[in-house]
Amino acid sequence: MENGKPVSIVLPDIENPLLIEGYPGVGLVGHIAANFLVRELGMEMVGYVESPFIPPMALILDGKPNPPLRFYGKDNVIIAVADVYVAPTLVNEIVRELTTYLKKRNAEKVISLGGIGIGFFKEQMDVWGVGAREELNKELEGNGVKLLQYGSIMGMSGRLLLEASRNKLDAYVILGETFGDRPDPKAAANVIEALKRLVPLEVSTEPLLQEAKAIEEQLRKMHEQMEQARKKAQQHYESIYL
Amino acid sequence: MENGKPVSIVLPDIENPLLIEGYPGVGLVGHIAANFLVRELGMEMVGYVESPFIPPMALILDGKPNPPLRFYGKDNVIIAVADVYVAPTLVNEIVRELTTYLKKRNAEKVISLGGIGIGFFKEQMDVWGVGAREELNKELEGNGVKLLQYGSIMGMSGRLLLEASRNKLDAYVILGETFGDRPDPKAAANVIEALKRLVPLEVSTEPLLQEAKAIEEQLRKMHEQMEQARKKAQQHYESIYL
Amino acid sequence: MENGKPVSIVLPDIENPLLIEGYPGVGLVGHIAANFLVRELGMEMVGYVESPFIPPMALILDGKPNPPLRFYGKDNVIIAVADVYVAPTLVNEIVRELTTYLKKRNAEKVISLGGIGIGFFKEQMDVWGVGAREELNKELEGNGVKLLQYGSIMGMSGRLLLEASRNKLDAYVILGETFGDRPDPKAAANVIEALKRLVPLEVSTEPLLQEAKAIEEQLRKMHEQMEQARKKAQQHYESIYL
Amino acid sequence: MENGKPVSIVLPDIENPLLIEGYPGVGLVGHIAANFLVRELGMEMVGYVESPFIPPMALILDGKPNPPLRFYGKDNVIIAVADVYVAPTLVNEIVRELTTYLKKRNAEKVISLGGIGIGFFKEQMDVWGVGAREELNKELEGNGVKLLQYGSIMGMSGRLLLEASRNKLDAYVILGETFGDRPDPKAAANVIEALKRLVPLEVSTEPLLQEAKAIEEQLRKMHEQMEQARKKAQQHYESIYL
Amino acid sequence: MENGKPVSIVLPDIENPLLIEGYPGVGLVGHIAANFLVRELGMEMVGYVESPFIPPMALILDGKPNPPLRFYGKDNVIIAVADVYVAPTLVNEIVRELTTYLKKRNAEKVISLGGIGIGFFKEQMDVWGVGAREELNKELEGNGVKLLQYGSIMGMSGRLLLEASRNKLDAYVILGETFGDRPDPKAAANVIEALKRLVPLEVSTEPLLQEAKAIEEQLRKMHEQMEQARKKAQQHYESIYL
Repeated sequence: MENGKPVSIVLPDIENPLLIEGYPGVGLVGHIAANFLVRELGMEMVGYVESPFIPPMALILDGKPNPPLRFYGKDNVIIAVADVYVAPTLVNEIVRELTTYLKKRNAEKVISLGGIGIGFFKEQMDVWGVGAREELNKELEGNGVKLLQYGSIMGMSGRLLLEASRNKLDAYVILGETFGDRPDPKAAANVIEALKRLVPLEVSTEPLLQEAKAIEEQLRKMHEQMEQARKKAQQHYESIYL
Repeated sequence: MENGKPVSIVLPDIENPLLIEGYPGVGLVGHIAANFLVRELGMEMVGYVESPFIPPMALILDGKPNPPLRFYGKDNVIIAVADVYVAPTLVNEIVRELTTYLKKRNAEKVISLGGIGIGFFKEQMDVWGVGAREELNKELEGNGVKLLQYGSIMGMSGRLLLEASRNKLDAYVILGETFGDRPDPKAAANVIEALKRLVPLEVSTEPLLQEAKAIEEQLRKMHEQMEQARKKAQQHYESIYL
Repeated sequence: MENGKPVSIVLPDIENPLLIEGYPGVGLVGHIAANFLVRELGMEMVGYVESPFIPPMALILDGKPNPPLRFYGKDNVIIAVADVYVAPTLVNEIVRELTTYLKKRNAEKVISLGGIGIGFFKEQMDVWGVGAREELNKELEGNGVKLLQYGSIMGMSGRLLLEASRNKLDAYVILGETFGDRPDPKAAANVIEALKRLVPLEVSTEPLLQEAKAIEEQLRKMHEQMEQARKKAQQHYESIYL
Repeated sequence: MENGKPVSIVLPDIENPLLIEGYPGVGLVGHIAANFLVRELGMEMVGYVESPFIPPMALILDGKPNPPLRFYGKDNVIIAVADVYVAPTLVNEIVRELTTYLKKRNAEKVISLGGIGIGFFKEQMDVWGVGAREELNKELEGNGVKLLQYGSIMGMSGRLLLEASRNKLDAYVILGETFGDRPDPKAAANVIEALKRLVPLEVSTEPLLQEAKAIEEQLRKMHEQMEQARKKAQQHYESIYL
Repeated sequence: MENGKPVSIVLPDIENPLLIEGYPGVGLVGHIAANFLVRELGMEMVGYVESPFIPPMALILDGKPNPPLRFYGKDNVIIAVADVYVAPTLVNEIVRELTTYLKKRNAEKVISLGGIGIGFFKEQMDVWGVGAREELNKELEGNGVKLLQYGSIMGMSGRLLLEASRNKLDAYVILGETFGDRPDPKAAANVIEALKRLVPLEVSTEPLLQEAKAIEEQLRKMHEQMEQARKKAQQHYESIYL
């Protein structure tokens, strides 16, 4: 990198940004929810993560090449998505750079979306959450989100919550219950419904529920490819990142 | 890191600190003992270890995000706990930074808590210990701790004893006998009883003994997850740490 | 490297270069097409990629030693070929250096050739493509290339498309449908036919089709050796690249 | 490291030191011999090797914490011992630093002790040796040591011989024949007897021979633990050392 | 390294050197040929390769310690031999340093000796070769060496040919046909006979042919040890070299 950093975040100056993160995880819940929001809200790609340690690839969407780790934006909302497995140390570096950006621009909120694997099905799959501090937890509970009292949140969502909290940002993690072994658009819809109570987003999850089956099929295929790519990437990358 | 170090210790200025270390090890003895003390003494989180080489995660406790390697404090007592497996080179760097802090602040004592696997059960499980120098060994023996004459102490406890000794700090390791293949709150209670004879801590191990079974169940589950996380982390990290 | 970079591109100053890339990939389509063009157009080796992380070897062609990653040139056309597996991080670094060169020299076009595995045979194997922007996609479609709307392009081709696009270069990827598990000179011919509609190259693919069988045999052998070399290289290199 | 070196040697200024090295190797011959000399000669620990790449541990001896790689001293004799497996690159760095020390202080002699595995037993197990130059070989032969004409000496002993020779120091390697698959105090006694003819050390190997059986049992256990530690350490360290 | 390079070449100033390289490879052909020349020509060790990434060992020859990668010299002839497996990145660095030396001293010729595995036996095993440019190829052909038109030359020989060619040095590779799975002194003799037609070396290969059987036995044993060392070294080194 020109600046000597292993990772750099390319993003325009957005004041009081509201960041929503949906990197791949359990049930692809965050990934599905974030991508759905991007499409339904008609958001544009506004930035990306740059690093020599990201696997070489272009993601083609609507006939256009996209970087695998990118940001979409509309007004002050920024959505972070990823189409590749991101190695742990790279997650730490991305979070560091991203938090620096968010702090500098006085971020309004920092919300990670994800899934929580429960290994069984039930009538009403709940949504769990946790915030950087007491008031945010109350806000979550007041909006029908069950408070996660104990547990560990791995990866991008966990580290972002931690780092944003340290920087006194209003950070949340919202996790939809999911079986855990397959892509779950329904859990993504549940997470978005909870998100809508926290943030004034005008989006109906009806299409998501309707498209659930079709999307499920399509995502299953992507999931498999991503898994293979992840395994390969892991093999290649796990020892090279400084 | 801004300062170019792979690890930094974030801790307030505490004069004559008394550090108690309980990183995960045999029988999770140190881990259980340290966490029990934190809870029973009503200690607050006062610091943490920061490094790009720590696995990305947030530990949620009481509905609050916590870093996986952190310090609790009350008066001059600091307790160091960890919720992830810490790679050897990272241990060395943490010990170096921590010892620098302790030396600078004229630490009163540096006490590592842990277990010693004996592979069988007996009526009276003993507590073994060793100090940085002769007088400390006598102090241990005078307080019912059996002196460890020969053996090796691996990981955080061993390195901390070594480095603190080199820096002329009053360092001890206290190890409770344990079967070795499962979390052992009873051994943790034994270790705390020995600790109480060295340090004026007002805490009863009665609840620990009473809660032993419940805790054992809960910790077994955490232990499994930690083991999995450790294996994954090891896979990811073993070649990346410079 | 003298300049401290892990990779350097050695190339003469060619104004408005038209770069064609054919690194090994699915069905060796890009590799076959690029090497065929080099031979049929009577191009000379004009440069190479230099890095301590490229496996040590010399490729002997026509009784002359050649570097495994090299460039051929004639007029303003540059063709990039590789005879070894190139590790992901090395791909990223090569693309960075190459794009810097292309940007500086006002590249006319940047075209990656490759294959797209479909896993079955059909009468008419199509050619797919995608460009850096709308106009280029129309140009592709206007020339009988099916537009790749969704998908991921891995490796050199994907990363080059992405990086060249970011630098406002006219970048394309052209992918010939191929079964996917064997070298496919027919797909290479299809790709070259599509390429000829974009770029005024005077070359007949007739010999390629005629030689198809002979070439197939020869390439299968090279493919096996390359695969072995790749596996070895991967084993050696996957942890050493900084 | 403060000085930017991966390894530093902490040793007092001893003029004309006579270094004896007994790192673990075939039959633990050097290890047993060196530790026996330390005990019988009543030597004190006078220094150690410091590196973030040494596994974190404290070795407890006589109720005192010791670093795993350390030096004992008495008059001008320094004995180097190790209680962990030392990775190859670390060996190279230790040898470099140690030789710098020895050269600067005009070392009298540099003697490595070790075993040579022969895979069978015979009445009289011989002692082989080789020196940095002709005169030293003659000295060895004149003292009943068989001259090693051809072969390779791996690890600490080989590298130290090489580096010390380059620096014009009087370096020797003395290797006792041993079966090779078990700790061999008898071979250690043979090596010490040869050493005594080169260096005026007043020590009887009688206790070593007498204690042979007891020591053998104890060392077998240590050996197993060390082997396990070595395997673990190797797993952890083999990719992290820069 | 003091100069910050991972490798340094220690060699006296020899004007117009004629370098012959015989690192281990297929059938140990280059290794056997180079060592035979050293002995028959009565050459002295004049230099070595120094690097913290070379496995720690001393090779004992004629009762003297030798570095595993070393140079022998007589008049302007330098012979490079290696007794350990050399990792790919290390090869690249050695070639770079060596070529710098050769260029600076106006090397007369740079000749790599090796084997080419054919997997069967025939009456007359041929010798193949390739040079840096047309004239050298003609010189080879004029001296009974078959011209290698297509193929890849891996390792030290391939990289040295490439790098020396780039630097306009008169570089050759001479490869003796060999079965490929065993040390082959006969192929080494064939290679030396070809070499003698290029370079005025007064040496008879008669002793080599006579000693063939004895040498074969001895080398087979060395080969096995080297293979084991190589595997171990590879395991240790493949991730540490930067």
